[in-house]
Amino acid sequence: MQLQNMLRQKIGWLESKGKSPGIAISSRVRLARNLNRIPFPQKASRREQEESFEKIKGACEEIAYFKGAPILNLQEFDRVDRQFLLERHLISYEHSRGDGVRGLVIGDRELLSLMINEEDHLRLQGIQSGLELQQAWDILKQIDEQMDKKLDYAFSPEIGYLTACPTNTGTGMRASVLMHLPALVMNEEINKVLQALNKIGMVARGLYGEGTKVMGDLFQISNQVTLGPNEEGIIDNLERVVKQVIDYEIKGRKTLFKESKEKVMDVVYRAYGVLVNARQISFAETMEFLSKVRLGIYFDLGLDTKLDILNELTILTQPAHLQESVGKELVPSKRDFIRAEMIREKLKSGK
Amino acid sequence: MQLQNMLRQKIGWLESKGKSPGIAISSRVRLARNLNRIPFPQKASRREQEESFEKIKGACEEIAYFKGAPILNLQEFDRVDRQFLLERHLISYEHSRGDGVRGLVIGDRELLSLMINEEDHLRLQGIQSGLELQQAWDILKQIDEQMDKKLDYAFSPEIGYLTACPTNTGTGMRASVLMHLPALVMNEEINKVLQALNKIGMVARGLYGEGTKVMGDLFQISNQVTLGPNEEGIIDNLERVVKQVIDYEIKGRKTLFKESKEKVMDVVYRAYGVLVNARQISFAETMEFLSKVRLGIYFDLGLDTKLDILNELTILTQPAHLQESVGKELVPSKRDFIRAEMIREKLKSGK
Repeated sequence: MQLQNMLRQKIGWLESKGKSPGIAISSRVRLARNLNRIPFPQKASRREQEESFEKIKGACEEIAYFKGAPILNLQEFDRVDRQFLLERHLISYEHSRGDGVRGLVIGDRELLSLMINEEDHLRLQGIQSGLELQQAWDILKQIDEQMDKKLDYAFSPEIGYLTACPTNTGTGMRASVLMHLPALVMNEEINKVLQALNKIGMVARGLYGEGTKVMGDLFQISNQVTLGPNEEGIIDNLERVVKQVIDYEIKGRKTLFKESKEKVMDVVYRAYGVLVNARQISFAETMEFLSKVRLGIYFDLGLDTKLDILNELTILTQPAHLQESVGKELVPSKRDFIRAEMIREKLKSGK
Repeated sequence: MQLQNMLRQKIGWLESKGKSPGIAISSRVRLARNLNRIPFPQKASRREQEESFEKIKGACEEIAYFKGAPILNLQEFDRVDRQFLLERHLISYEHSRGDGVRGLVIGDRELLSLMINEEDHLRLQGIQSGLELQQAWDILKQIDEQMDKKLDYAFSPEIGYLTACPTNTGTGMRASVLMHLPALVMNEEINKVLQALNKIGMVARGLYGEGTKVMGDLFQISNQVTLGPNEEGIIDNLERVVKQVIDYEIKGRKTLFKESKEKVMDVVYRAYGVLVNARQISFAETMEFLSKVRLGIYFDLGLDTKLDILNELTILTQPAHLQESVGKELVPSKRDFIRAEMIREKLKSGK
């Protein structure tokens, strides 16, 4: 366990800035890239994995944006550290659990990062607070162009960037927006919305990506198609769809507030009351109550906290984060205790 | 609705004084008395009811203790007022719902009161905070003796005081202690205790007496036998039994605290958090959470409130009390709203 210093660093995409931060928490764009003449990581020998790792590391060291950025070799990190990076949305589940030579480069305030030897040699990720896909893409594009000059990307003029999995081939881009949709969950319209998204080539996932449970009414909405439309098309398309979902959610919230303001007040304040007072609390319960309090902030119900603190708690109260914070592994019951303590402190200091 | 002024008056037996007030909330002794040559109230004509009412009223007016005490004719009070008096433990359910000429005399701080033409012509009641049966009885005895001089009590040297129901004949006394037994409820020993009480001629009831639901872990323990033992014997016997129950409860609390202090802290603080933050709350839920907070006070967990405030809330948050407080009848949902407001105010002002 050696990532404690990251606990004190601000995460840029949690700052509750950008467009519609009360509903669209963050916008994320990632690119899959591979190097010519080196097999995809899963087919590569250890020596070949080391080769791609060193090449990408070298490229990063020559790019001004990554000046001073940590370049981690995941082999040097234990299970809790890797889970910590996963919880931080810096690496994927596969990257956290896989073996072989794997790396991670972390840019300023975690707004840009880069996985080395995940499914592809390179996975570049840009995240911004709020509905800011274009901004995330703008920064990512610049870095990708600079990397392109230093590295020999596997690219076919006919089909675009080559990737380990054909679903990523073409632009290699996936864009997603992390959305808070409590009203659509409460009025039970969420399934209708998710089905409609599927029909137009979009997919909604839980907080940790594919196959993960939805907690705290948080949904990641992303494009499924990477082949075909160009990058700008993907961004525009997703942004348009997300704006529609935001409109539905806003409409749902308005109706909720109009028809049952007192009930909403009660649910919100009870959630706040439990968070500020509990002495033991699970992560799932934390997410459930944070969702209610977040809604209270949106409705301006006079709660003594702010959106960025709630965003931060979503990350800090995860199991590996708690374990890093105390510098040792903890059994779940002990984590529930430390989690409650952290929530009380954050909500009280946030006044 | 005309009893609003009583809302501002302190109720002496809620003051959390006397012995073991953390477990024995209050001690109550009542005497059933009847007047010679007037039929029992249920058999009496209206004129005869008026006669007993006037005689008892007259006696009270001559007794110094009752100087300035309100003498209410229940016929003049509406449904909410009568329920208010019931919630205040000044009258019985039967007295609140029955017709005919019925009265109530309320002594200083409600420590002594007197129902006229309930099941018997006279029901004298003395209540004290904590386990103070003897003190309640001492005051009651004095008043009873003074009344005896003014009134012609129906008394037989062989069997004692005559009463409408033979179960009250003899001493006419019933003594009870209102007990808070959350540990015995949590460790599921309560049924064993209640069965043991039954075997020795004691009975445990809910907050509002016979046949009422137990709420907030509050039990009224009382003697079933009025014929046979003399008054001192009844008091001593009940006190001895109650002390045993207190010992069981203390043992239960100690074990609870030793084996699951963190869990207890969590349950207590969550209950407090909900009470201080809820915007709508039912009476049953209020009682449930007050019970937990009361336990927190007992364990000295640093809560920002006091036992007498919790005692007071037990009474003030009842439906008729809320309706008197706003001076109009309220539908249950509106009561839940006013109740939550009152709880927040009381818990905040009680710092």
